[in-house]
Amino acid sequence: MKSYREELWFETKTRRAYLNITPLVEAAVKKSGVKEGLVLVNAMHITASVYINDDEPGLLKDYDDFLDRMAPQQATYRHNETGEDNGDAHIKRQLMGREVLVAITAGRLDFGPWEQIFYGEFDGRRRKRVLVKVIGE
Amino acid sequence: MKSYREELWFETKTRRAYLNITPLVEAAVKKSGVKEGLVLVNAMHITASVYINDDEPGLLKDYDDFLDRMAPQQATYRHNETGEDNGDAHIKRQLMGREVLVAITAGRLDFGPWEQIFYGEFDGRRRKRVLVKVIGE
Amino acid sequence: MKSYREELWFETKTRRAYLNITPLVEAAVKKSGVKEGLVLVNAMHITASVYINDDEPGLLKDYDDFLDRMAPQQATYRHNETGEDNGDAHIKRQLMGREVLVAITAGRLDFGPWEQIFYGEFDGRRRKRVLVKVIGE
Repeated sequence: MKSYREELWFETKTRRAYLNITPLVEAAVKKSGVKEGLVLVNAMHITASVYINDDEPGLLKDYDDFLDRMAPQQATYRHNETGEDNGDAHIKRQLMGREVLVAITAGRLDFGPWEQIFYGEFDGRRRKRVLVKVIGE
Repeated sequence: MKSYREELWFETKTRRAYLNITPLVEAAVKKSGVKEGLVLVNAMHITASVYINDDEPGLLKDYDDFLDRMAPQQATYRHNETGEDNGDAHIKRQLMGREVLVAITAGRLDFGPWEQIFYGEFDGRRRKRVLVKVIGE
Repeated sequence: MKSYREELWFETKTRRAYLNITPLVEAAVKKSGVKEGLVLVNAMHITASVYINDDEPGLLKDYDDFLDRMAPQQATYRHNETGEDNGDAHIKRQLMGREVLVAITAGRLDFGPWEQIFYGEFDGRRRKRVLVKVIGE
């Protein structure tokens, strides 16, 4: 069994952002040399998500509107009594998920026609990490 | 390490539908010959989910009501300005998730008493796929 | 390839509860002897979640408030017509997710600075299980 590990670092200019990281994950899978296996891609921070959906600007705005309707940045959160201001981001991240797991077949991401891997940032403007872990043969 | 891959195809008669696919996943695990490992089951389309919960008709209706309350089919979505009409389905899928990962122990799905694997379709009436990927020994 | 399986049992005193189970998962990984691989941690019951976020009391209260706002315990659910009273718990569990998958690197959980694994119970006061499945080398 082979394994491979890589960290992807991001620093978004805005508080919330949605970045298509598919090419970075594809490159990591290629470097791993794994032909049949699995690749886990997860946010290493708890106010960010990794999720799979379409790379369409209108959809990204729909997600952002939906998430801020569910957990508005300006609402009151007990978490913010600790001095933080990111209570909303912890909820948004749960709604979009921490991680995705993608099958690797014949050395490639085994994807349907529109699947793209996104980094969803809900409390950005600082350096944060995503873990890519590949296992297989 | 063994690996095995299978696609499951569905074409629901209704726009939204919830199908118990547990027997199909069990059959794939048996075909794989894997006794100890993991099976990933994921929607290959971005307006559908794979999730695990109970096979109880009232609950399926509760989920459907909840999802259409959170992201009503008839609401306005920027994604629909592209000519699509499935903006709601992209949000419903995120709430229910893309994938499940199930342990395989002694050649079987290692499940609690009520766990069943469902395909959640939010924009159906066309042929769509689920990926089953097994790895282990 | 090595594999290891362990069940963690919980019986919460309250209907809803959020338990940090990170040390229990770390201990299972150590017992497995796996140095490079993956650990799956999933609720074996369908009214409970395993998720990763911060161990901060205000945040746990924010999650609980959010979940009961999305799916109030006292609302009407078709599922409850079967004689159950946990229709809300099946929805809360979907919002927080069934499972997490964590990379194992050099024999340890490969975590960012604040990641902690939680058992989220939404219909407690009875014995329920979490599955820990480790695979790797």
